[in-house]
Amino acid sequence: MLVTVLAGGIGGSRFLQGVRAVLDEHAGTGVPRPDAHLVAVVNTADDITLFGLRVSPDLDTVMYTLGGGSDTERGWGRSDETFTAKAELAAYGAQPDWFGLGDRDLATHILRTQMLAAGYPLSQVTEALCRRWPLGLRLLPMTDERVETHVVVADEEAPAGARAIHFQEYWVRLHAAPAVREVVLVGIEDTTPAPGVAEAIAEADVVLLAPSNPVVSIGPILAVPGIRAALHRRSGPVVGISPIISGSAVRGMADKLLPAIGVHTDAAAVGLHYGARSGGGVIDGWLVDESDAAGLATLEAAGIAARAVPLFMDDTGASSAMAAAALELAGSVGARR
Amino acid sequence: MLVTVLAGGIGGSRFLQGVRAVLDEHAGTGVPRPDAHLVAVVNTADDITLFGLRVSPDLDTVMYTLGGGSDTERGWGRSDETFTAKAELAAYGAQPDWFGLGDRDLATHILRTQMLAAGYPLSQVTEALCRRWPLGLRLLPMTDERVETHVVVADEEAPAGARAIHFQEYWVRLHAAPAVREVVLVGIEDTTPAPGVAEAIAEADVVLLAPSNPVVSIGPILAVPGIRAALHRRSGPVVGISPIISGSAVRGMADKLLPAIGVHTDAAAVGLHYGARSGGGVIDGWLVDESDAAGLATLEAAGIAARAVPLFMDDTGASSAMAAAALELAGSVGARR
Repeated sequence: MLVTVLAGGIGGSRFLQGVRAVLDEHAGTGVPRPDAHLVAVVNTADDITLFGLRVSPDLDTVMYTLGGGSDTERGWGRSDETFTAKAELAAYGAQPDWFGLGDRDLATHILRTQMLAAGYPLSQVTEALCRRWPLGLRLLPMTDERVETHVVVADEEAPAGARAIHFQEYWVRLHAAPAVREVVLVGIEDTTPAPGVAEAIAEADVVLLAPSNPVVSIGPILAVPGIRAALHRRSGPVVGISPIISGSAVRGMADKLLPAIGVHTDAAAVGLHYGARSGGGVIDGWLVDESDAAGLATLEAAGIAARAVPLFMDDTGASSAMAAAALELAGSVGARR
Repeated sequence: MLVTVLAGGIGGSRFLQGVRAVLDEHAGTGVPRPDAHLVAVVNTADDITLFGLRVSPDLDTVMYTLGGGSDTERGWGRSDETFTAKAELAAYGAQPDWFGLGDRDLATHILRTQMLAAGYPLSQVTEALCRRWPLGLRLLPMTDERVETHVVVADEEAPAGARAIHFQEYWVRLHAAPAVREVVLVGIEDTTPAPGVAEAIAEADVVLLAPSNPVVSIGPILAVPGIRAALHRRSGPVVGISPIISGSAVRGMADKLLPAIGVHTDAAAVGLHYGARSGGGVIDGWLVDESDAAGLATLEAAGIAARAVPLFMDDTGASSAMAAAALELAGSVGARR
């Protein structure tokens, strides 16, 4: 069985841990290549160049988390991390000083930058970096081309009353405080899916949309020209999991960004935003939290098979239960088609 | 009084500390710009690109040492250093793994590389990096152009029985063990002195050659087209200090490299190698250690004013005494001309 998951960073990683656990259990002990049954297609629109180094926060979060090298207490970056170089950059007065560049993390960015400069595409660089980690999945960037999510925020001091900043500045430096007028995926029109992405979507028995941010994580993946078409064209089911529970983002800042794309911060509303494949959208099924069961009828009426199950990923067991529920829904959707 | 010192890394830094101490004492407390009376022209032929980052070992050693940020016990690199990124690069299997890249040091290389990539010449990058440190001198790279010292070492497995390796590989990785056939300064013919270097040589009251390696530190500086001519043209004295004491290199590997350029590992022989300015060489005076006093007559016969004084720089006091002796010799040479 091959499962392909479209995912962002932190929420995506947790969900992928659950999917991996379920698939590993199904496969038993005799799997020759544990990465042969799970592909993660990961958002790269959060990527940023800092001090001349190319940083891919979502790819790295998935790589570190699935590789067992993430700091689970801090919630981002590497375990056993030090921040010596960051302190030294600050002593030089170098800007920006608000991005948490750990020394271990820096090694990843240095190697990525070196390989990119040597001409290797991001997908090959990612594959090379992943060789060191026992990921148990195949990690693909959504595209090899550069995209950057810029957020247009209100700024009374700016001439137009607003200014565009990189998503990382909005989130890491400004903690999503300014009012958002627009989210712009700079360069997205000129991208193509990275090698293997279209195939992973076409050939997967099940495609899952992780409970990642619909605006800045799943949104950019779906906006890469060719990916929506690949989701439409495939024969098997596509099931998504709501990142919104009881009208709030479980983590991150989806609640601040959904209004900018005209979507209510509501589990059913996000499912309807993705839309039924039968009606030109990208999903066949949608999982919401038990507390959002009231929206099931609306979703079903729109042609989306919907289920309400516990969606808090507070431990790997919960992530696995969620992944199992998503695969089960995919199975029932697949049988119905 | 303006003193310009041509210098390499570790030995050059110690000597510069002594010169700075002597000049500070002379100038008293009322000096408005403490860097107005001392210029260091530093070797950059040891520079190397590692993991896409441009490393300037000699410039950094001078900057860290004179800035009070060097590790005096280890003898190289930054104080309070950590090596987390280095361990991580090794975990990725990245090569080379033999260069001691500390995390603080890495911050310097990251900023240098970023500024060079933005189009700033090395001299401006060096000036920008130095702003953070109270150096008490003006630090100039010998050239803004790229030069790399390659060492041709015997290698029975190589087709020609020898191979060329970067000086850092010869010194840091191979600990100067292989027999040296030749030292090649790749690219030196196409260099020009960095902005300020010719002026610092022309306008200085005294030019000093630090007791640095004659082959791979002072040698490359003198080989930059225009620097020898500037030394010839200036009116004031040029005095050098022997890096060889009693037939041995005080530190480093000069004893292994001098044979490759046909010079005996002997204090007087190195002085004669630099040669009297009156006879087409670059020095007017040469300081040797007390133990090498036997060579004084030969030097004087060749037109080089020579003195024997204690030359071990075992503490700052000793470095200062050495610097004072060099300036005194320069004074007597200047009076004689």
